[in-house]
Amino acid sequence: MNAHSPTVTVGELPASKKVHKPGQLHPELRVPMREISVHPSAGEPPVTVYDSSGPYTDATVKTDIERGLPRLREAWIEARGDVGRYEGRTIKPEDNGFVSADRLTPEFPVRNRPLRAAGGRAVTQLAYARAGIITPEMEFVAIRENLGREQLRSKLQRDGESFGAAIPDFVTPEFVRDEVARGRAIIPSNINHPESEPMIIGRNFLVKINANIGNSAVTSSMAEEVEKMVWAIRWGADTVMDLSTGRNIHNIREWIVRNSPVPIGTVPIYQALEKVGGVAEELTWEVFRDTLIEQAEQGVDYFTIHAGVRLPYIPLTVDRVTGIVSRGGSIMAKWCLHHHKESFLYEHFEDICDIARSYDVAFSLGDGLRPGSIADANDAAQFAELETLGELTKIAWAKDCQVMIEGPGHVPMHKIKQNMDKQLAVCGEAPFYTLGPLTTDIAPGYDHITSGIGAAMIGWFGTAMLCYVTPKEHLGLPDRDDVKTGVITYKIAAHAADLAKGHPAAKIRDDALSRARFEFRWEDQFNLSLDPETARAFHDETLPKEAHKVAHFCSMCGPKFCSMRISHDIRAEAQKEGLAAMAAKYRDGGDLYMPVDSTSERTDTP
Amino acid sequence: MNAHSPTVTVGELPASKKVHKPGQLHPELRVPMREISVHPSAGEPPVTVYDSSGPYTDATVKTDIERGLPRLREAWIEARGDVGRYEGRTIKPEDNGFVSADRLTPEFPVRNRPLRAAGGRAVTQLAYARAGIITPEMEFVAIRENLGREQLRSKLQRDGESFGAAIPDFVTPEFVRDEVARGRAIIPSNINHPESEPMIIGRNFLVKINANIGNSAVTSSMAEEVEKMVWAIRWGADTVMDLSTGRNIHNIREWIVRNSPVPIGTVPIYQALEKVGGVAEELTWEVFRDTLIEQAEQGVDYFTIHAGVRLPYIPLTVDRVTGIVSRGGSIMAKWCLHHHKESFLYEHFEDICDIARSYDVAFSLGDGLRPGSIADANDAAQFAELETLGELTKIAWAKDCQVMIEGPGHVPMHKIKQNMDKQLAVCGEAPFYTLGPLTTDIAPGYDHITSGIGAAMIGWFGTAMLCYVTPKEHLGLPDRDDVKTGVITYKIAAHAADLAKGHPAAKIRDDALSRARFEFRWEDQFNLSLDPETARAFHDETLPKEAHKVAHFCSMCGPKFCSMRISHDIRAEAQKEGLAAMAAKYRDGGDLYMPVDSTSERTDTP
Repeated sequence: MNAHSPTVTVGELPASKKVHKPGQLHPELRVPMREISVHPSAGEPPVTVYDSSGPYTDATVKTDIERGLPRLREAWIEARGDVGRYEGRTIKPEDNGFVSADRLTPEFPVRNRPLRAAGGRAVTQLAYARAGIITPEMEFVAIRENLGREQLRSKLQRDGESFGAAIPDFVTPEFVRDEVARGRAIIPSNINHPESEPMIIGRNFLVKINANIGNSAVTSSMAEEVEKMVWAIRWGADTVMDLSTGRNIHNIREWIVRNSPVPIGTVPIYQALEKVGGVAEELTWEVFRDTLIEQAEQGVDYFTIHAGVRLPYIPLTVDRVTGIVSRGGSIMAKWCLHHHKESFLYEHFEDICDIARSYDVAFSLGDGLRPGSIADANDAAQFAELETLGELTKIAWAKDCQVMIEGPGHVPMHKIKQNMDKQLAVCGEAPFYTLGPLTTDIAPGYDHITSGIGAAMIGWFGTAMLCYVTPKEHLGLPDRDDVKTGVITYKIAAHAADLAKGHPAAKIRDDALSRARFEFRWEDQFNLSLDPETARAFHDETLPKEAHKVAHFCSMCGPKFCSMRISHDIRAEAQKEGLAAMAAKYRDGGDLYMPVDSTSERTDTP
Repeated sequence: MNAHSPTVTVGELPASKKVHKPGQLHPELRVPMREISVHPSAGEPPVTVYDSSGPYTDATVKTDIERGLPRLREAWIEARGDVGRYEGRTIKPEDNGFVSADRLTPEFPVRNRPLRAAGGRAVTQLAYARAGIITPEMEFVAIRENLGREQLRSKLQRDGESFGAAIPDFVTPEFVRDEVARGRAIIPSNINHPESEPMIIGRNFLVKINANIGNSAVTSSMAEEVEKMVWAIRWGADTVMDLSTGRNIHNIREWIVRNSPVPIGTVPIYQALEKVGGVAEELTWEVFRDTLIEQAEQGVDYFTIHAGVRLPYIPLTVDRVTGIVSRGGSIMAKWCLHHHKESFLYEHFEDICDIARSYDVAFSLGDGLRPGSIADANDAAQFAELETLGELTKIAWAKDCQVMIEGPGHVPMHKIKQNMDKQLAVCGEAPFYTLGPLTTDIAPGYDHITSGIGAAMIGWFGTAMLCYVTPKEHLGLPDRDDVKTGVITYKIAAHAADLAKGHPAAKIRDDALSRARFEFRWEDQFNLSLDPETARAFHDETLPKEAHKVAHFCSMCGPKFCSMRISHDIRAEAQKEGLAAMAAKYRDGGDLYMPVDSTSERTDTP
């Protein structure tokens, strides 16, 4: 039964407090961050981390899934005076896959009439940016990206290799506007998803991650999917794609969007295919167009559009080891081939842009011909499509639509950088959004890891958002545990990329955790980690007692062999001896002998 | 109770058969490989994979832990006529940490008198290689590395970036000899560990992985450690380090070595410290020397020696965020500082070499000053030590000792390559053996992943062996599940590195698995994966029925959306239409229209 309201995971993470920062241009902004406090003995301020989890982790807020989240952007959108409400499209039986009444997921209890641009205008963040307007969304993301590091501006140590990115010491609202105007970053923000907390995807910002959820014809319900969304953002997903392909697609999506503080992406061709009974050949531009409007009215923030799968590229896939592995790509390929016609997505791309600009739905131009195996990486089909995506990017930009570009897939390490370089070259620096890539095919069950390697590398090279892969990839639909594992793995990849790119604030959390580790502040070490629950549970498996939380050792080495404890002895001795001062002398070839203070003698107790 | 004999995991992996290849120079060789058979419908030969698991996965062999493995190298060693048996050192109470009788791990039931070089000769593979001798060990590893790919020599497609490595199309015994003679590869093979199946560690061979096991003062017993060893090699560990630091070290190690088909490494300073009651300052050269002989007589194949932790480098660590994180390094630092003397390991390094060459114990020159946090990566202390390791390498080589060099640790991605480049430059291309590196500090509980990223990269750049990190790193002692997760993660990293380096045979398994995936041969997909059990279990969570093992879809997308199925339709159509032939025409800008055969019309059933 889908009929009862879903239960979702709420509550703060350990030692964490949700804080909100106001804007300056827009003082009404309340930009969320998470402060992780450390033990008073550290004498350190809390560590502020990026927080995508929304009100669910705010102890002061009571969320209600039946009502949805507060519509915080509604006033900003209406204040721009360029939209109007209208009746909207009527929900049709095919929107939910003609499901019979007793199997129908209930409609979301609240219905809002949708907004749409007035008079054919573009109501996109790109249009505003080009017009020189700094929207509340832009200031919001500027504040959000800085993580309160104003005070660090003076003592910044930049270190990294960014491969030509231009990450500033400090993100200003004007910098955000400029990056959006140049098409180098997007702020997915459908005017019908006012519940979303703005975030930005671009090479000069923190690397973001996406988590996929969604039911399939085989398994999963609305309650599970809403919880998966809340669960995914709890652990750090920056956007969520609803890839549902089963029945009840419309109603499940409504529940998700109304309760999501992060942008929601979809692949509209999936629902369109359901509407024509799963027969790819029967897809039409009219059905697809109707689906785009349906989803735009619901508030979907970005659409994957596989308009780069052109008829002439299909033969290029025939000799591949794994053919076409993108669902959307294969559907379109089948359509093209059956009708012996160019893709209606390609031919109607300007019409698609006209819809997107009326709601500010961003594009994620799909890589329908991405390689599905090491053997097929970087082949002619893949790169032919990428060039078409570059061409479509220019069309979208001419229509003031926001665009990012999807990337592979399965790619061995030595071929990863070529993907990034080519994408930058042919897509005018539009943000790259990649699935992994998986660096080998031989580990089903561990593809979060095979792909986490590739994701970290391509994130370093410049990919703006990494689409997670879960342990169930290639094998089954991810459950809640898989979602968490996928998210944490991709937070690692994204953060490793931020560090390597030389993001000015990325190292703060590493350093705080390492200091906690060195000072045996076990609780701080758990709390500062990406997954405090797992860190604590692993520690407690062998040393469960509370007393062990202050122990100057762990079960790996036991007390006698603890290098950290010995290092403290060395440091203590050094402070006595003024060793640091002697280091220079040693380096210059000084005497190895060092005068000894006899009081420093002591014995370790085993 | 440790008193009962351990039970270990035995039996073939699914669809796998152990095969043995003979030598040509040494026809008596039986070089093990694993053949994974695929479904007859594939029309493909079995896939041959490297097999480090020893007789435990050989259905024709009955192993007996109380007797140990067959001593296959004994005849080879004795035939060289340069060794003699002797009484060996008497086991002393301190060898097992003065443990009282009822807590004493029983002695291994069989005692063999140890072998030692006669007349001060070097009985190392390096000495033989320099003398132009191709030992059975060398031919064994040549055959082992080739994985029976003789027949592929003519159709090799080399593809990769090896950063100056010189990986041959085909490994000959002479190539092995030459690489060993140049010091670019080692074959750890203590003459007192004749049970070992020879393997090679070098940049021009397959990337290897090491798994650490060992008890600590806090937890774990002999039975668990023997099973961990067998379990680690079952999943692919190429060597195993016994890092025990608790009591019963001598006896536990004996059980491990006698039952190990892979080289065993240790850090002798750990046991030496136990012998002096855990008081670092009381360590002496004599205690250490005695420990080296004790372990060499048991058959330890390589020693980690932290001889690069020199007194003048210790001050360089004082301002680090995490000080000294190597156990051995911190012990030696404490000793040096306390006595205000240069390290006895450094000062006695030639004496250490004289022991090693008498048994062919290889060196793993320890990086006692490796960084323990992102903040400390690539600092003065680390690189000062690395230069000393280069100096020690030359001393060891002058003594005909085999050497590899240990590397970090915690290193952000953009600083990884510098480690490899510097190691190659200052250590004369001696094999590099790294722990990870971890690419961020913020994910305790997931450090197999933070480090798997770095391991794959540094393996690509040229590291010869990757020391695994388990999910328990920084938190506790790994259990059996953690060992498996660590091993599989590192097999992924090593294989991703082999692919990227352009190893001539690495892609065979990827391609076979991808073909199985594309052809819906689910069983083959499981069987060809690194962990068939997990792959199958994940699939069966949602589609448990046997019928689903031949289903042309999975639960991720369900039947309608299966891109692979659609790709087959496309391919079928292509074969009819001769699409492949038309691809060229399309690329040349030919007409998009393609004549349609009306019989190709059909409908998908949803």
